[in-house]
Amino acid sequence: MLTLFHHPMFATCRFVRLAFGEYGEELALIEEKPWTRRKEFLALNPAGTLPILLAEGDVPIVGAMVIAEYLDETRGVLKRDKRLFAEDPMERAEIRRLTDWYLNKAESEVTRHLVRERVLKPVMPETAGGGSPDSAAIRAARANIRQHMKYTNWLAGTRHWLAGNRVTYADLAAAAALSVLDYLGEIDWREHSAARQWYT
Amino acid sequence: MLTLFHHPMFATCRFVRLAFGEYGEELALIEEKPWTRRKEFLALNPAGTLPILLAEGDVPIVGAMVIAEYLDETRGVLKRDKRLFAEDPMERAEIRRLTDWYLNKAESEVTRHLVRERVLKPVMPETAGGGSPDSAAIRAARANIRQHMKYTNWLAGTRHWLAGNRVTYADLAAAAALSVLDYLGEIDWREHSAARQWYT
Repeated sequence: MLTLFHHPMFATCRFVRLAFGEYGEELALIEEKPWTRRKEFLALNPAGTLPILLAEGDVPIVGAMVIAEYLDETRGVLKRDKRLFAEDPMERAEIRRLTDWYLNKAESEVTRHLVRERVLKPVMPETAGGGSPDSAAIRAARANIRQHMKYTNWLAGTRHWLAGNRVTYADLAAAAALSVLDYLGEIDWREHSAARQWYT
Repeated sequence: MLTLFHHPMFATCRFVRLAFGEYGEELALIEEKPWTRRKEFLALNPAGTLPILLAEGDVPIVGAMVIAEYLDETRGVLKRDKRLFAEDPMERAEIRRLTDWYLNKAESEVTRHLVRERVLKPVMPETAGGGSPDSAAIRAARANIRQHMKYTNWLAGTRHWLAGNRVTYADLAAAAALSVLDYLGEIDWREHSAARQWYT
């Protein structure tokens, strides 16, 4: 069984777990608090980021999209119509664009800040950046949620799934990001019915 | 001929141009100033970021790594020993990790800030964020250069090329990022002889 170093509140880690779940492949989980900068963890990934997959032969595979590509190359190609990626290069580019949108753009404009201020800082030691939440950072992140919801709503309203006619990595990336925000009660679904229908 | 929307001082755009150059494929270039938020540009990419490739049929392909994957799928697979990517999934994961390191981690810790403060702000209108450089941002970015140079030096000293035995996307990503910093005179090569040897 492969092993994933993850944190339950990181969208990037949720995304990887969703992908393995879709393929019915079990994953041993190790919860990591990256801010403690554990030596063994930094030896696996000098960038000090999550997620990290220990793949066959315990080789570390670092980063959500890197893991997704690896999963596709070693498992996805055999999944036929359940494959979470497309065959066509143009469609693959669109799936990658949207996966990056949710795991990097939404992450750096919204998700990361709300998780840090509302979830992590209260449990982090002050030496690692813990302390009371920064209300300006929370306000700024909240102001950005609307644009991401509007875009998601537009995608969900004009396509069957976010990147086209099938469930792909793009849907899992969006679901991972929005599930973190939904858990924090940050999403007002009423104005975004197409997105809500896609999500449920 | 394919068209690239780029900015000459963005490492992500330099990376794509290097990759096309390695394959001897010409690229029509359109210089874009993303901060002007030109309508036609935002229609191609609502994220408002560079680079964007107009691929076959003028379909926009958005983002440096997304373009690199597309280039590999449509051209690279035919290049045999000149291919900038590996065949093996594990080696591919390592190339992707390092490409992401230089195009995202180094970018957000160093390159983006120095380019913004030293190159872009003086030419941007105040309404788009222009003005005098923020010396604290410059200091913070400079403090981070050392770690990236040390890591590059370690990679270059222990491997033939950064991701293994062949030139890959990882080398082009590092070259793109470091060439921006080198152009700005921000790199002290004397302490990093393995990196210097790899670079030249």
